[in-house]
Amino acid sequence: MTIKVVAKHYVKPEKVEDYIDLSKELVKETLKEEGCIEYGLYQDSENPLILTMIEEWEDNKCLEKHFNSEHFKKIVPLMADLCENETEINVYNKIE
Amino acid sequence: MTIKVVAKHYVKPEKVEDYIDLSKELVKETLKEEGCIEYGLYQDSENPLILTMIEEWEDNKCLEKHFNSEHFKKIVPLMADLCENETEINVYNKIE
Repeated sequence: MTIKVVAKHYVKPEKVEDYIDLSKELVKETLKEEGCIEYGLYQDSENPLILTMIEEWEDNKCLEKHFNSEHFKKIVPLMADLCENETEINVYNKIE
Repeated sequence: MTIKVVAKHYVKPEKVEDYIDLSKELVKETLKEEGCIEYGLYQDSENPLILTMIEEWEDNKCLEKHFNSEHFKKIVPLMADLCENETEINVYNKIE
């Protein structure tokens, strides 16, 4: 069964554009990864400082590989520097 | 552009099974709605009390219609009674 990841970030007000710019390479490279079904950045319709990556992966093994990919290790720490401290990450299994 | 909805619920410990049971009719009926691309209930892999509806809709108009549907108005209040007070709902637009 596939897994979903919802990674919700509260970005610093003056850093939203930089955050979005950085995300573009991450999204582009991640979509090429084995087992990546969906990977996109979304902005909350009411609070533009909430930027959330919504992801779907074939399985946990593919997600682990993603965490160890060059693009993840290069770009994610730069994006994290632009966030407030309240990042919320959930890994989900579907209820069938 | 489509919209995503992430509705994260903290369900009372003794109510998880009832919550999942109630969700089944809601999911089944909602998937028949016009403009519903995705609608599924997901359980956090670390905290089984976190149950989240992950949704995708053609547009806001379809989502509004969903809020006014018979199945939504019948089932969602029953599900809400089984939750703690910390429900978090975000409506998202994709960053392209």
